[in-house]
Amino acid sequence: MMDRARELDAADPLAKYRVHFILPDGLIYLDGNSLGALPSATPAVMQRVIQQEWGEGLIRSWNDADWFEMAARIGGKIAPLIGAEPQEVIACDTVSVNLFKLIAAALQMRPGRKIILSEPGNFPTDIYMIEGLERQGLATQRLASREDVPTALDEDVALLMLTHAHYKTGELFDMAALTKAAHEVGALVLWDLSHSTGAMPVDLGAIGADFATGCGYKYLCGGPGAPAFAFVAERHHRDLKQPLTGWFGHARPFAFSDEYEAAPGIEQLQCGTSPVLGLAALEVGVDLIAKIGVKRLHLKSQALSEFFLECVVELGLELELVSPADSAARGSQLSFRHQHAYAISQALIARDVIGDFRAPDILRLGFAPAYLRFEDIAEAARHLAEVIAGEEWQRDEFNRRAAVT
Amino acid sequence: MMDRARELDAADPLAKYRVHFILPDGLIYLDGNSLGALPSATPAVMQRVIQQEWGEGLIRSWNDADWFEMAARIGGKIAPLIGAEPQEVIACDTVSVNLFKLIAAALQMRPGRKIILSEPGNFPTDIYMIEGLERQGLATQRLASREDVPTALDEDVALLMLTHAHYKTGELFDMAALTKAAHEVGALVLWDLSHSTGAMPVDLGAIGADFATGCGYKYLCGGPGAPAFAFVAERHHRDLKQPLTGWFGHARPFAFSDEYEAAPGIEQLQCGTSPVLGLAALEVGVDLIAKIGVKRLHLKSQALSEFFLECVVELGLELELVSPADSAARGSQLSFRHQHAYAISQALIARDVIGDFRAPDILRLGFAPAYLRFEDIAEAARHLAEVIAGEEWQRDEFNRRAAVT
Repeated sequence: MMDRARELDAADPLAKYRVHFILPDGLIYLDGNSLGALPSATPAVMQRVIQQEWGEGLIRSWNDADWFEMAARIGGKIAPLIGAEPQEVIACDTVSVNLFKLIAAALQMRPGRKIILSEPGNFPTDIYMIEGLERQGLATQRLASREDVPTALDEDVALLMLTHAHYKTGELFDMAALTKAAHEVGALVLWDLSHSTGAMPVDLGAIGADFATGCGYKYLCGGPGAPAFAFVAERHHRDLKQPLTGWFGHARPFAFSDEYEAAPGIEQLQCGTSPVLGLAALEVGVDLIAKIGVKRLHLKSQALSEFFLECVVELGLELELVSPADSAARGSQLSFRHQHAYAISQALIARDVIGDFRAPDILRLGFAPAYLRFEDIAEAARHLAEVIAGEEWQRDEFNRRAAVT
Repeated sequence: MMDRARELDAADPLAKYRVHFILPDGLIYLDGNSLGALPSATPAVMQRVIQQEWGEGLIRSWNDADWFEMAARIGGKIAPLIGAEPQEVIACDTVSVNLFKLIAAALQMRPGRKIILSEPGNFPTDIYMIEGLERQGLATQRLASREDVPTALDEDVALLMLTHAHYKTGELFDMAALTKAAHEVGALVLWDLSHSTGAMPVDLGAIGADFATGCGYKYLCGGPGAPAFAFVAERHHRDLKQPLTGWFGHARPFAFSDEYEAAPGIEQLQCGTSPVLGLAALEVGVDLIAKIGVKRLHLKSQALSEFFLECVVELGLELELVSPADSAARGSQLSFRHQHAYAISQALIARDVIGDFRAPDILRLGFAPAYLRFEDIAEAARHLAEVIAGEEWQRDEFNRRAAVT
């Protein structure tokens, strides 16, 4: 198993990029789908931004260091990773706030329709943001299980809002087919790409997507709580009306006019002042992921998870896989259902193998392809087998839930 | 003039804090009301957060480095600066996004009322965020000039929303009187404290304020685009309903439930994932400003601006002051109207005296009391007199407006 891992590492064209990340010695990090690793270039960039741009440049840096342009510039760099044009993407706010803007925009563009269609068990914040508009009396939530989504689409639906790669199982939606089905009933579509961007190519242009948003702190390695991004197809820019009409989305913010006039392009998605420090860190991650390339990252991600499943078989581990068995049908992760998933994940962490527990019974292992080695995969599988075979996971310390897990 | 400045510096109890900030040699920075200076402790803190907490701790740092607690912890540190209880303040999102949450919450708490009352010429984003709720059909804007605000208050008004210290003139509203007047007609009050917090004490508790928000990157020295803060009086926590119902505002975000259940306390104001890097920088600034103390900062801020006006008189400068002449009636700034304000501000910048231009004709000089010396004030006045007396400001290069100013 380890020999095979070493062979795969030796043949891996992306192996050379591992040194572009800082990873603690001896740690096997299978949670890059939750918080991406630190690019080794980030600390120096942040010191420059803090000490030179902020400390020396002070207010002048909004112009001299192009702080005003960061949001659109980084959006433009994310665009090719998701099949968008540079002028269709902007880095701003959080996924949650961007969801609100885009759901509200869809409601404005589809007067008379109030239904926002999603699936139960979607990432919670996606559903919660619909609930926020329900609180305002503007939206009505409709949840249909993933196989029922096509039949739940009707002419009352303003917006179909789904997450491409499911956060818990990794299962992928067929973006092209569902976008087409939604458009056939006159609904708009909003894709949450949080668990896909940077791990696999997405082609928003080819499928005629309307809206999308995604996360900066997972596969894009932008740092904890990094700004998110938002996409609006250029054909909608003129008719777009989103309610978070802050001054950074104004056509001329420094005219200090009392009347809001939206910027003509994707900049109208901005609301408050750009979070410069967060954007600076995000840009380093985006540059690095773009340099490695999402097509190659996707191939490696598939190879990593396939190899993990081979190891599981070789070790005789009987585990209930809740992710799709076909790597083409899942994101860059494998999730297993186990009654003692929490304790097992804790026991693994104690062995420096960091995966994730997702309530109530899912052990989630992410395979961020930019910095993981096949050797890590073999080691992780061995640790998992030892933890399950032994009685380690039964220890009290692994069965006490932390306040936040 | 310079002798007097040196005397004042020698007697200044806050003079010793200047070394806690990094300021470029020879620069006179009169724009700390726009972007606060860099605390000298910030670079090392950020390196620790980036390299140790993110790089080494990775996902574990949400618990181990208390990332989950940062938003409430920093809110609790801002609270005493504004006369609030620690459990009433949280650091999150931007001022613009927080305005939206709080305006929408007021509308929910005052059913049947749609009017949001503010003043024309308020900081633009404040008015724009009302316009966002107008787009949704939920609010109606009413603007009344500051002297007419009391008579514009009636029982149709859901919320009175004003900025304590005006961004352009520095003129202060009487928070106590206006809060009382609004409450008398059953309206709620939202104070934007962006231009006061950290430069003067505010006592939200004593005046019975309902809501407030404010900026992290001005006098709090949290860095460019730092997270903002939001205040909700504890008596409103139970009935609060704000529409940006993201997962970080959930009572149990890691239960991953489909149903939104707001956290009981101020945490319900949170929406998306906390911006850890931005919060880490903000905390350093807040700690430093809190240590210096807002009462002492206010006294020095008044002394600085009064001394500037003395210098102006001594230099025989005839300038139209648009800020209140009484330092008790203004924020930590002086604004002058001048036909050539833009060119003058550019000429000053070329002399390393950084003030601000605010369209169409205002030269705004901010006196951040934590790091400015009286000597800087005398020097700035001398430069201003030279620029105006000479023909320097007439140079072409100072009269070409930058795309963004």
